[in-house]
Amino acid sequence: MQITHSPLSISIQGNKGSFHDLVSQKIFTNITELKERESFLEVFDDVTDGSVDFGVVAIENSIAGSLMENYDFLLSHHLHIVGEVYLRISHNLIAHPHVNIQDIKEVWSHPMAMKQCQEFLKKHPHMKAINKTDTAGSVKEVKTQNLQNTAAIASSYAAEIFDMQILEKSIETDKENYTRFFIISKTPVIPEDADKTSIVFSAANTPGSLASVLMSFHEADVNLSKIESRPVIGKKWSYNFYLDFSESLNSPQAKKALKAIEKHTNWYKILGSYRSGEYYYH
Amino acid sequence: MQITHSPLSISIQGNKGSFHDLVSQKIFTNITELKERESFLEVFDDVTDGSVDFGVVAIENSIAGSLMENYDFLLSHHLHIVGEVYLRISHNLIAHPHVNIQDIKEVWSHPMAMKQCQEFLKKHPHMKAINKTDTAGSVKEVKTQNLQNTAAIASSYAAEIFDMQILEKSIETDKENYTRFFIISKTPVIPEDADKTSIVFSAANTPGSLASVLMSFHEADVNLSKIESRPVIGKKWSYNFYLDFSESLNSPQAKKALKAIEKHTNWYKILGSYRSGEYYYH
Repeated sequence: MQITHSPLSISIQGNKGSFHDLVSQKIFTNITELKERESFLEVFDDVTDGSVDFGVVAIENSIAGSLMENYDFLLSHHLHIVGEVYLRISHNLIAHPHVNIQDIKEVWSHPMAMKQCQEFLKKHPHMKAINKTDTAGSVKEVKTQNLQNTAAIASSYAAEIFDMQILEKSIETDKENYTRFFIISKTPVIPEDADKTSIVFSAANTPGSLASVLMSFHEADVNLSKIESRPVIGKKWSYNFYLDFSESLNSPQAKKALKAIEKHTNWYKILGSYRSGEYYYH
Repeated sequence: MQITHSPLSISIQGNKGSFHDLVSQKIFTNITELKERESFLEVFDDVTDGSVDFGVVAIENSIAGSLMENYDFLLSHHLHIVGEVYLRISHNLIAHPHVNIQDIKEVWSHPMAMKQCQEFLKKHPHMKAINKTDTAGSVKEVKTQNLQNTAAIASSYAAEIFDMQILEKSIETDKENYTRFFIISKTPVIPEDADKTSIVFSAANTPGSLASVLMSFHEADVNLSKIESRPVIGKKWSYNFYLDFSESLNSPQAKKALKAIEKHTNWYKILGSYRSGEYYYH
């Protein structure tokens, strides 16, 4: 997937050099404005009030699971998923050029990155791990404060844009670390090559309604690629279900299935129909 | 749920005063040994090698979603869920006794707690937020270093055990913040009052197999309370499904359903059968 659009403004959670920025750089050419936000809610608000063209938000990680907060924002905001990207998350030990790994006394990074590099840190007990808010932000701080005995853990992209040295590559414990990102937009575009759709629905309060919904997809020849229940807070035994299926919303199969699920759901909402995401390795 | 057992050793992720410790205190009476671990994997390993009686692990949060890492450990370790607890997560601004809120220049906590208190921190821009590894650990540090201008964000339980003052209660932005915890054991105990079972299965590689599995539960009169798909890494279009249902494993309905799903699954594994969890508010 590649989106060309001019001028092009994007809102991301995190800073320049972060994984969200990296995804934006892979997907969009010629970004004219990048809004670096502290929270996902601000990204959803930016897209909703039209102050940016697109938002980029992580939605699930192979180790940490789904970001339910962002699924909830997709339900509460009237936006559309227009694209999907998978990114292999790889961490690196980054320091000033000409620094040796023996000189490193402190390592700075986000606690999630620290956790994912636990084995490496155990093997290097002389490095004190100091938690910071951001991976790329740690690289920036080490650089601007000219710290020669401090390294940061971040993406190789962060090393590149801040012109710093990678002391050790791929120091994450679990190499099967992927994050899925959504590209969100205010405009309900369905790409011509869309082959995947995300919906959320409330199953009817009758026994077997969820099984009937899934059977409706099966009978319409539509394959499912994700299902996740989400308890409705404050309503015991009430659930919403987030579901992805492998057809464009415009396909006759999807139309047939969505018609059929009407009688087994209280409501459903289309979150977007898009081209299934490529895997990027950085 | 209350477990009495003597002597009683428990393994938790985090420190004394953490939410995992709080759950342990609610569930177990007379803990003789509490192992404070840095990672969930160490907790699973402690229970597996028999060095503790029980482990306590978070499994999902109403905002952050499921901890897929822990679901994977449940699949890879031969352990049993023997109990479930829901805890309302509430954060507090904690400092030394006699300190005023106006004196606070720095706030220490885990980044997840910081994120959940973002609105409070925005309203108090003179407080500099410093990320630390642990919520309760921050309270302990503020106390032992005798820092009069620093506060920590943590549970009221942490304030209590370290004998510190709560400057402001319930400063979390979203009050609907619940975490679900599992009690895990090496011994496959099914409590007599069990009314809930967790399983994981691999749906057969035939169209509609997932719908057929759910239909099997419906036909056996078994209600589902959670379903979550989990892509099998490295195997495209292959999924495991984590599912909870509202019956004891010993019930005739559960037996009927599990017999019926055999032909629609490649395999299934019982993760445990237990009493559905109480909600604790601290």
